[in-house]
Amino acid sequence: MTDYRTLRVALLGAGAVGSQVADLLLKHRAELADRAGANLELAGIAVRNIDGKRDADLPRELFTTDAESLIVGSDIVIELMGGIEPARTQVLQAINSGADVVTANKALLATHGSEIFDAADQVGAEVYYEAAAAGAIPIIRPLRDSLAGDRVVRIMGIVNGTTNYILDRMDTEGADFADVLAQAQALGYAEADPTADVEGYDAAQKAAILASLAFHTTVPLDAVHREGITQIDAAMIESARHAGYVIKLLAVCERLAAADGEPSESISVRVYPALVERTHPLASVHGANNAVFVQAEAAGDLMFYGAGAGGVQTASAVLGDVVSAARRHIAGGVGVGESTRANLPTVPIGRVITRYQITLEVDDQPGVLATVAGILSEGRVSIATVEQTVIEPDADDPAAGGSARLVIGTHQAREQDLSETVERLAASGVVERVVSVLRVEGN
Amino acid sequence: MTDYRTLRVALLGAGAVGSQVADLLLKHRAELADRAGANLELAGIAVRNIDGKRDADLPRELFTTDAESLIVGSDIVIELMGGIEPARTQVLQAINSGADVVTANKALLATHGSEIFDAADQVGAEVYYEAAAAGAIPIIRPLRDSLAGDRVVRIMGIVNGTTNYILDRMDTEGADFADVLAQAQALGYAEADPTADVEGYDAAQKAAILASLAFHTTVPLDAVHREGITQIDAAMIESARHAGYVIKLLAVCERLAAADGEPSESISVRVYPALVERTHPLASVHGANNAVFVQAEAAGDLMFYGAGAGGVQTASAVLGDVVSAARRHIAGGVGVGESTRANLPTVPIGRVITRYQITLEVDDQPGVLATVAGILSEGRVSIATVEQTVIEPDADDPAAGGSARLVIGTHQAREQDLSETVERLAASGVVERVVSVLRVEGN
Repeated sequence: MTDYRTLRVALLGAGAVGSQVADLLLKHRAELADRAGANLELAGIAVRNIDGKRDADLPRELFTTDAESLIVGSDIVIELMGGIEPARTQVLQAINSGADVVTANKALLATHGSEIFDAADQVGAEVYYEAAAAGAIPIIRPLRDSLAGDRVVRIMGIVNGTTNYILDRMDTEGADFADVLAQAQALGYAEADPTADVEGYDAAQKAAILASLAFHTTVPLDAVHREGITQIDAAMIESARHAGYVIKLLAVCERLAAADGEPSESISVRVYPALVERTHPLASVHGANNAVFVQAEAAGDLMFYGAGAGGVQTASAVLGDVVSAARRHIAGGVGVGESTRANLPTVPIGRVITRYQITLEVDDQPGVLATVAGILSEGRVSIATVEQTVIEPDADDPAAGGSARLVIGTHQAREQDLSETVERLAASGVVERVVSVLRVEGN
Repeated sequence: MTDYRTLRVALLGAGAVGSQVADLLLKHRAELADRAGANLELAGIAVRNIDGKRDADLPRELFTTDAESLIVGSDIVIELMGGIEPARTQVLQAINSGADVVTANKALLATHGSEIFDAADQVGAEVYYEAAAAGAIPIIRPLRDSLAGDRVVRIMGIVNGTTNYILDRMDTEGADFADVLAQAQALGYAEADPTADVEGYDAAQKAAILASLAFHTTVPLDAVHREGITQIDAAMIESARHAGYVIKLLAVCERLAAADGEPSESISVRVYPALVERTHPLASVHGANNAVFVQAEAAGDLMFYGAGAGGVQTASAVLGDVVSAARRHIAGGVGVGESTRANLPTVPIGRVITRYQITLEVDDQPGVLATVAGILSEGRVSIATVEQTVIEPDADDPAAGGSARLVIGTHQAREQDLSETVERLAASGVVERVVSVLRVEGN
């Protein structure tokens, strides 16, 4: 038995992830000591209610409601409470009392990341957050360390398991959103209040964290454009399939070259459901899995795939961070964050350039396609493909006249040009209904 | 402009990777300084021939044939010569003169890794080798750091781009090995002497490195079981496809529970062509791409995907290591390698347990299947599926009698039982020919 130094570890929170972390810290004590070069002594677990129900069988004497006293004198503080307060206050207390911090709290980092990282820089502490970006998938170290000598150009991430589960089942079963959501809730894949997932808030927090790291800048959460998946229906999924696409909720982080008259590069960070070609590696990410597709100047295309959530899976990422923090304590030396962070401007969604698929219901009359094409051309939206299908007339109302469906694939277009053009199409008189407008990503 | 400390970087070798590393070090000087927190001054490039042809346009005054003098006084030494000597001697010289070492040399690490890591531990230096395991794919940091609090159970890697390119084209085109190899050589995907790739030597070196890291042990190269892909033909590919599989050259690293009467766990490290189900994430790794599929106790299934080779792609991994080494220099503190390394025994291939697909040509007579099934059962090989097809008689020799093809899928079996059983089948009198025996991986 090697004679290791002992490091004091404080755990804040004992929910799904926290109780697994405590359990693994106790169960794998000897192996973790060998990995870390130090004994990791779990000094206590701060919770709101000592008698709360836990996912693991943990010694009762470890629990306390006094987080502040537990933090004092700890070498490593693991924050797994979630939410902004008291997490923010206690993380800052830990940093200022000389501890390294490990957290899985994406909401906290996406909203108060700068304050926390600045506080850590002041005292030479480190903040580890592998579990905050894509659950169990190791993505922080690859972006911060492995790609530190490269330039990340673009990230496309499936970073929310609930929405990927829903969209995947809609795709495989042809089911509608509401039905699959209800199933997902029954199976525990979706919360009773699914807003954070299905409206893209969770993905937006992760997008802010990934973009900050990939582009060495600070991305405020309100700079992330966000759309959810509640408007996706079975017909849109089927139409996507027909055109060789699958619909995925993507977090897209993109580096944009400096435009005329602008001093620096800018970035775009956006979350929305998008069409992805079925041959793209992201298309084969099924169920509640996550994946982060990274394009870098030198390294080319990389993808990181795995479980995006789950108590024990996320606990793996947390413990990896704990071992890293312990190794740093043993090695000595000061914490080295990013030596500089750029303040790259984030462009509004209107300036984003991508491809689109526009689905319209139009009058089935001669000249309609020419009118539609003319409006697109005036709006600087260039057509790549058009498919027209006749819609069978309504049997109850045969006098209503024929309709046709137009599915238009565009070349790269500016979002603002595109949305103005779609408004003009809707008002043109020949378009009965704009069925859907979806971005195409992954070229 | 921040006032950074300057670190002296020596580069040994200016081949495909080395010249890209030098080019990027010079071109991205300011950005790398921001990432590293230090100016990375390329002090010189040691080569055998100063007038050799390079892939990048580099200042002639940087070149020298005197590696020993260049190493003296360097903070970071990048070894990209390849081969064992003089790489080994110069890496040890660098370590002993106080430098950190970055290397992409898999042959060196697979054969002299222990000597090099021990030398580094002695003086508190670090050896970085992200580019040695799977080219541009960040896999070292995830295994060493992100999963340090977890237990890796199994790795299945497509770690050789040349063989994946060949097998992928055989699969999509129905072409034969020799034809695709010739095409690959013409396109530069395979060397004039393809032995290191097609016989699995390159993959075996990477398997030794990955297994050492994943299981925190030392795996000597000669403990890696190795088979190449030269015996794979179009018929085997087609037969695999028919059964829902694709053939991939896999590096399999597996942790085996302690058997009766044995004190510790053991591991198996093996490289061979194997059948992978077409729905498995590894099946969608096409062309010269690489991927490493990792199963860990807590994190579950993870996959890391990207370019496995290429000068500029590999240079990205090398530069990430250079930035890490620089950050460590700036932070101070001593190097922390693994505090302990287990000496897990590697089991011989005969003790490996996996599933098999056995393809036989047999006499088309009543009772043959019963005989074959009896031999398998005696040999403790349990049958999962059997498919029998009649082979059309030879038109030139109609008197020769009918043959049938049996494709047998087994349950888990011990390799030694399996191979002895196949020998008994071959000698049984009812089997005309053992067409192929392939392992099935990925369950």
